[in-house]
Amino acid sequence: MKNSPILTPEELLIQWQGHRSLTRRTIKRFPDDKLFTFSIGGMRTFGEMCQELLSMTVPSAKGIATGTWTQFGEIEGAPITEPVQTKKELLEMWDWSTAKLEEFYTQTDPERFQQTDTAFGQWKGKVWWLLFYAIDNEIHHRGQAYVYLRALDIEPPAFWER
Amino acid sequence: MKNSPILTPEELLIQWQGHRSLTRRTIKRFPDDKLFTFSIGGMRTFGEMCQELLSMTVPSAKGIATGTWTQFGEIEGAPITEPVQTKKELLEMWDWSTAKLEEFYTQTDPERFQQTDTAFGQWKGKVWWLLFYAIDNEIHHRGQAYVYLRALDIEPPAFWER
Repeated sequence: MKNSPILTPEELLIQWQGHRSLTRRTIKRFPDDKLFTFSIGGMRTFGEMCQELLSMTVPSAKGIATGTWTQFGEIEGAPITEPVQTKKELLEMWDWSTAKLEEFYTQTDPERFQQTDTAFGQWKGKVWWLLFYAIDNEIHHRGQAYVYLRALDIEPPAFWER
Repeated sequence: MKNSPILTPEELLIQWQGHRSLTRRTIKRFPDDKLFTFSIGGMRTFGEMCQELLSMTVPSAKGIATGTWTQFGEIEGAPITEPVQTKKELLEMWDWSTAKLEEFYTQTDPERFQQTDTAFGQWKGKVWWLLFYAIDNEIHHRGQAYVYLRALDIEPPAFWER
C-alpha cells in the first residue's frame, strides 16, 4: 500500500508535545539566577533561546492551521506579551503556548501538511517542513542547554523521556 | 481527505539526509586536534558523539527496512569497524553511512512506518518513531557541537541550510 502514512496527525502532535515536555523539564533544571545570565562562547542564554522558541511555536501552529502568519505579539490571549524575564514567567508562557498549540493544531486540516506556504512572509516550504523546522529548532537549542547544565554541574533530564 | 499524508517517504529521506549533510559540515568546522579532545562539563567530545551517531544510523536504517536489528560491527561492507579516531576517518565513515542509509531506506516498504518493532532488542515503538529518534538524537548532539565550536571561537554552519 503506497498510501500507508508515515505517521498520523495525532502522532505528530504527540511527538511535538513530547519535545515540549522535555524542554519544559530542561528549563526547570536551571537555577533561577542562571537561566537568563549563564552562557558559553558569547551565545545567548537559554532563557533568551526559549524566548525565540515561544515566539515561533504558537505563531507557527496558527500559520499551519489557518494560513495566516502573525507575529507573537499579535496572538490573542497571551498572558505576557513582553519578553519573559524570569523562570516563573517563562514556564507560565510555556504552558500557555502548549495549550494554544494544541488548540490550533487540532483545527488543522490534514491536507495542509502537503501544501506549500510562506511562513512569516519569509520561509517558503511545504507546511510539514515548516512544522518540523519548529520542532528541530527546539531540539537544537535544548541540546545547547544540556551543555550549559553540564557546565553548571547539573544533570540534564534524560533525552529519551518525553 | 483524512488520508492526506503528512509527508511522503521520499520527503522523509530528503529531511534525514539534509540533517546528515548539516552534521557533516559541523564536523568539518572542527580543527583536527579538537574533534576528539575538546569537551565541556565532562561531556563526550563531538568525535565520540559522532561515533554514537555512526553506530545508530546504518543499523537503524537496516532495522527499519528489514526488521533485523544488528550491531554496527555486524553491518557488511563498512570500511572501518573500529571506533574512528581522526576527522578523516570520521568523514569517510560518515559518507559511507549516508550512502548505505539511502540503500536500505529505498528498500523500505512504506507499511513498515506504522508497524511496531523493538530496535536493538531494547526500544519498542512504531517504526516512524524509531527513525525520528535517530534524527532527533543527531540534532540534539549537533546542537551541543555548536556550543563547542562557539567556545572555540569558531562559527558553526547556518542551522537552516541543509
